[in-house]
Amino acid sequence: MLEVHAFDIEIGQHKVMLNAVDARERGLYAGDRVRVRTRGASTTAILDITTEMVKPGEIGIFTEALKELKNATSVDILPAPKPASLCYIKMLMDKQKLTEDQIRAIVQDIVDNNLSEIELSAYITASYIHNMDSQETEWLTRAMIETGERIHFDTHPVMDKHSIGGVPGNKVSLLVVPIVAASGLLIPKTSSRAITGAGGTADLMEVLAPVEFSGAEIKELTEKVGGVIVWGGATNIAPADDKLIKAEYALSIDPYSQMLASIMAKKGAVGADAVVVDMPVGPGTKLPTAEAGRTLANDLINLGERLNIRIECAMTFGGSPVGRTIGPALEVREALTVLENKGGPNSLKEKSLSLAGILLEMGGVAGRGDGYKAAESLLTSGKAHKKLMEIVEAQGGDPNVKSEDIVIGEHCEEILSPTGGYVVAFFNKRLVELARLAGAPADKKAGVIIHKKMGERVKKGEPLITICSSAEWELEGAVKDAKRQMPIVVEGMLLERYPGIREL
Amino acid sequence: MLEVHAFDIEIGQHKVMLNAVDARERGLYAGDRVRVRTRGASTTAILDITTEMVKPGEIGIFTEALKELKNATSVDILPAPKPASLCYIKMLMDKQKLTEDQIRAIVQDIVDNNLSEIELSAYITASYIHNMDSQETEWLTRAMIETGERIHFDTHPVMDKHSIGGVPGNKVSLLVVPIVAASGLLIPKTSSRAITGAGGTADLMEVLAPVEFSGAEIKELTEKVGGVIVWGGATNIAPADDKLIKAEYALSIDPYSQMLASIMAKKGAVGADAVVVDMPVGPGTKLPTAEAGRTLANDLINLGERLNIRIECAMTFGGSPVGRTIGPALEVREALTVLENKGGPNSLKEKSLSLAGILLEMGGVAGRGDGYKAAESLLTSGKAHKKLMEIVEAQGGDPNVKSEDIVIGEHCEEILSPTGGYVVAFFNKRLVELARLAGAPADKKAGVIIHKKMGERVKKGEPLITICSSAEWELEGAVKDAKRQMPIVVEGMLLERYPGIREL
Repeated sequence: MLEVHAFDIEIGQHKVMLNAVDARERGLYAGDRVRVRTRGASTTAILDITTEMVKPGEIGIFTEALKELKNATSVDILPAPKPASLCYIKMLMDKQKLTEDQIRAIVQDIVDNNLSEIELSAYITASYIHNMDSQETEWLTRAMIETGERIHFDTHPVMDKHSIGGVPGNKVSLLVVPIVAASGLLIPKTSSRAITGAGGTADLMEVLAPVEFSGAEIKELTEKVGGVIVWGGATNIAPADDKLIKAEYALSIDPYSQMLASIMAKKGAVGADAVVVDMPVGPGTKLPTAEAGRTLANDLINLGERLNIRIECAMTFGGSPVGRTIGPALEVREALTVLENKGGPNSLKEKSLSLAGILLEMGGVAGRGDGYKAAESLLTSGKAHKKLMEIVEAQGGDPNVKSEDIVIGEHCEEILSPTGGYVVAFFNKRLVELARLAGAPADKKAGVIIHKKMGERVKKGEPLITICSSAEWELEGAVKDAKRQMPIVVEGMLLERYPGIREL
Repeated sequence: MLEVHAFDIEIGQHKVMLNAVDARERGLYAGDRVRVRTRGASTTAILDITTEMVKPGEIGIFTEALKELKNATSVDILPAPKPASLCYIKMLMDKQKLTEDQIRAIVQDIVDNNLSEIELSAYITASYIHNMDSQETEWLTRAMIETGERIHFDTHPVMDKHSIGGVPGNKVSLLVVPIVAASGLLIPKTSSRAITGAGGTADLMEVLAPVEFSGAEIKELTEKVGGVIVWGGATNIAPADDKLIKAEYALSIDPYSQMLASIMAKKGAVGADAVVVDMPVGPGTKLPTAEAGRTLANDLINLGERLNIRIECAMTFGGSPVGRTIGPALEVREALTVLENKGGPNSLKEKSLSLAGILLEMGGVAGRGDGYKAAESLLTSGKAHKKLMEIVEAQGGDPNVKSEDIVIGEHCEEILSPTGGYVVAFFNKRLVELARLAGAPADKKAGVIIHKKMGERVKKGEPLITICSSAEWELEGAVKDAKRQMPIVVEGMLLERYPGIREL
């Protein structure tokens, strides 16, 4: 018997720690599985070895495992086999084909926290190096759907929209969802928060209403008002994805077949019948060339066919931001301006109507080729605006909010063009960095307003961008950074000067 | 400023934990690096995110990082870049060639615990899938040597021996080292403990003397008596290897170029000029075919040339154990019997003399083709025995120990042949399992004595093996297991019977 030394730390896994002396005596090594038993309870845990943290005769047990062991004060342990999914991960490394059951075992073990970080990382790395074929990717997607919460609608078709991402200011979902819902189709849109961006759709919607709902609530709200815009992370939809993303983020990789499966699993789990995929193409996005876009489109469409989900992909221009704002509140204000038919940038209106139009056609409420016009009429008639307000109200927000009510950070500063000419270079990533330096997405009122886009004429001293923030010190940091390296370059502008650092 | 919540747990890394609220506000994610600062101290740590373990406004700091921060009670944090080695690991995934500096950066970060388990695992997995070329493997080896302790001898040549492993009962180092040292050559042999086996050379030597010494002590002892047999794990020689092995063990993989580098780094770090590599070939070993053996031999020889270390490889029969014992004390007794010229199995004598002979030739103390005879004469003259006793004494053991003094576990049981005939199948791995079930390697007195080897004639009721242990209950478990599934099959023996389980 070993005396329990409780480690009151949640580590997301069942983990125990033995002194090296005891481990050696039992022929156990770090990374082995052990069955830990006490009177009336037992669990399997991953073993770690220490010479310092626990004494011989003791066993360190972390919170999660100790809970399962009913806070036992003494336990005994037995060696336990490694999960079978480790063999299947090894097969993936060896580029062997996996069966549906094998893929499912891997996904289930990921969801159940049965894999150590070392093992999970090996899966991600092997997935990155050896893409799965389309049959395996289908199985992977199905496993990701089936190991989580699912929504079954009684009414069909159910529409959805996804963006591959990589373009800043992409607030189109705030227009697409209400337009589609206003047409009578269902569109239960789950979306993400920003990871490296200045605001995901969920961050934006949160300016208007709460976004954290369960699967059952999403179903109820969607059936009531036709659509929702919620944060997927609050649900248990395709739960493997969150754990995979964590390791992918740590390694800065995005395995291709895993990406396909992750996208489609979230759509499949909400019961989508038809999905439009926004694919921003261009330097700095995830799809540098149209060719890469076409490959991805084909793979998504094929995977959709296997899952009985119709997919249409829309390649869009990703070279500059959608509209002229970056940052949650600024983007919401811009989207509301368009919905209220009070103007707003054409790039935002065009893109939103195109995507919504495709969904109206796919959903059968507009004839082929008539989607854009149908979407436009839902927008200009004010029906889309009314629908968004219904959605906001259903999610618990204020349905009377106007674009001019949206509060922007009180500390703003313009960055002026040091010279006159045409905009000849435009760096999306720098703009996102500036918005983040100003505080976005956590500071919802922070962000960047873009005055000049690629090719536009600028006079010396005219503002190129305005940076806003709730906090003066954050604004100062962002402004300093913008002046150090301008996100927008005007023809004739001095880029660098040697020797010495250029001060604008 | 964040209030420090100390986690008094050593986790082998600099790690801190933020509440999800604070992480979000700062745009930080799990796996990010952060610079943690307090008055007069700072460190870089890997970030983890929690919703439970630390409250907003707090930061959880684990032992190692807190020590660097001088047990500060409040700190502030800044985002810090990920180590450059992560980019190089990504390059390895993408099958791009790495430069010497890039490989060195990876190895240095492994040694310094700068990589998370996720990152280390990605390196191992990518190494497994994409082998490095010979130039990269040379750089990897050099980096592994240079990031650890090195021994520089004034006298040359320095000889060494390595076994690829995979064959049980391989106690040959206990004979090879004293034979070579008795010839006047230096042989500072570092060896490993068993991981999956029943006893590594270090476990065996420990029956006779302490085996934990520093690099400086190894040098001193070797210069004094000509050789040592010590545990490499107690030194800081090629320290990257231990960390790599831990992750490789967890994943049950052994990346090829990493294996080459690990072998040669340990030889290079002790200053070896010439090395004989024992390559047991046969089913159940790491080298199933002679072809695989030849490939490995070529790669080791080429890598040796790059490092200025002469390598000769000896393919040996790995189909059955070396000698007739498995388990530390039993193996030591058998080796001493041979050294004392009191008999002992021919397979052990032959193999040891062959390997020692190669080293005598490489070291220039025997002519080409005369090594075996020279080794034999050092053995039969008693010089090798005398030398081993000198080594034992130098390492702090009893120089008067005799083979018959070696104590074997008092609980022994014979497993009898249920039928008469010839041995037609012989399962090495089962024998190792039985020795481990009996308590080896932690119970040094536990193990298996083999009475019949492949092809030998057995009468019904004759003993096939004897299992010994210090503990009656462990003996019982091993005996039960042996009877359930025999490690040695005699022609005509019933293997299984349906229905029902065969009871022998």
